[in-house]
Amino acid sequence: MKYPKKFKDLIEGFESFPGIGPKTAERLAFYAISKQSKDASLRFADSLKDAISSICECEVCGMIADESKCEICKDDTRDKKLMIVENSKDVISFEKTNAYKGKYHVLNGLISPTNGIGPDDISIDKLISRLESEQFDEIIVATSSTIDGEITAMYINKLLASKGIKTYRIGYGLPVSTDIEYVDEITLIKSLESKKEM
Amino acid sequence: MKYPKKFKDLIEGFESFPGIGPKTAERLAFYAISKQSKDASLRFADSLKDAISSICECEVCGMIADESKCEICKDDTRDKKLMIVENSKDVISFEKTNAYKGKYHVLNGLISPTNGIGPDDISIDKLISRLESEQFDEIIVATSSTIDGEITAMYINKLLASKGIKTYRIGYGLPVSTDIEYVDEITLIKSLESKKEM
Repeated sequence: MKYPKKFKDLIEGFESFPGIGPKTAERLAFYAISKQSKDASLRFADSLKDAISSICECEVCGMIADESKCEICKDDTRDKKLMIVENSKDVISFEKTNAYKGKYHVLNGLISPTNGIGPDDISIDKLISRLESEQFDEIIVATSSTIDGEITAMYINKLLASKGIKTYRIGYGLPVSTDIEYVDEITLIKSLESKKEM
Repeated sequence: MKYPKKFKDLIEGFESFPGIGPKTAERLAFYAISKQSKDASLRFADSLKDAISSICECEVCGMIADESKCEICKDDTRDKKLMIVENSKDVISFEKTNAYKGKYHVLNGLISPTNGIGPDDISIDKLISRLESEQFDEIIVATSSTIDGEITAMYINKLLASKGIKTYRIGYGLPVSTDIEYVDEITLIKSLESKKEM
């Protein structure tokens, strides 16, 4: 005796998502078909199909959008700044700070030699053609401070420098509310390099 | 700027599942709509709708099924034994052992005074009417050794005893491959009580 075929398919469906193992998938599948959550599961299935068919990338910046142009790209009151980020999640993170009012360019990936991802696999050519038509006072590269993030930042900096365009990199240092005991040495060195008068 | 409405709905859909927090839900939603997994996500949405509309409980034993009667209840070659379990998962667990060839009765719940779940909320009346029409040589109560599992086992034992039906409880003791150092006292006492000549 095994589970009915359609229930096994459902378990496998849950299992195909990253970070969901067989035990969790089984638990989620039971939850999905249980009496008290059937209706919510049906709505969820519809919302998934709906999102897949209607969500796209903004044709200007690459941000996740439900129209050809995202809200930020449509907003002409934004500052004449451009922040280059890895993905849409990072846009939301910077938007939550309320400290940046410029526009964004979403690379939808990072250059990653170890994973065989080169500059042509991310949205760099779109960035270049965008800079030819749009004017910005400041360009900030806000990729992560991981190896791939740094490689991507350096690549973009070099490429834009060759076209006479200056770029900024976001600052390195101590994360706020962090005990120095738990901070790695390279971060400490960077925090000394970026010291400011109080 | 926030995520597009349909994408936010999708995140909330993932979040409605148990054990999935906002961060994981966001990650799963991005994965679901990404280019490389769009097709799999559409199949998953269909399989979810399909499972909800076609999966039911076996009208005899309460096991998850895709027909009115499950495979085990349809199988007349099974031993004339009945094992009473909490849910369909437990049936699969015992089936995997290949040590039990009888039938099952799935309670689809446990009596739980702390959660306000009484005998009428689980499949006990169905068990009683089943025992009136079907003949079994042995009845084994295989609920968990948790408080709710024990309360349920005791309730069923008392109820069936009043009808002159004898029940067995699965054995307590040391789980296999377990270091005694990590076993609680009550389990050790139970393992002494159930000692066997070697």
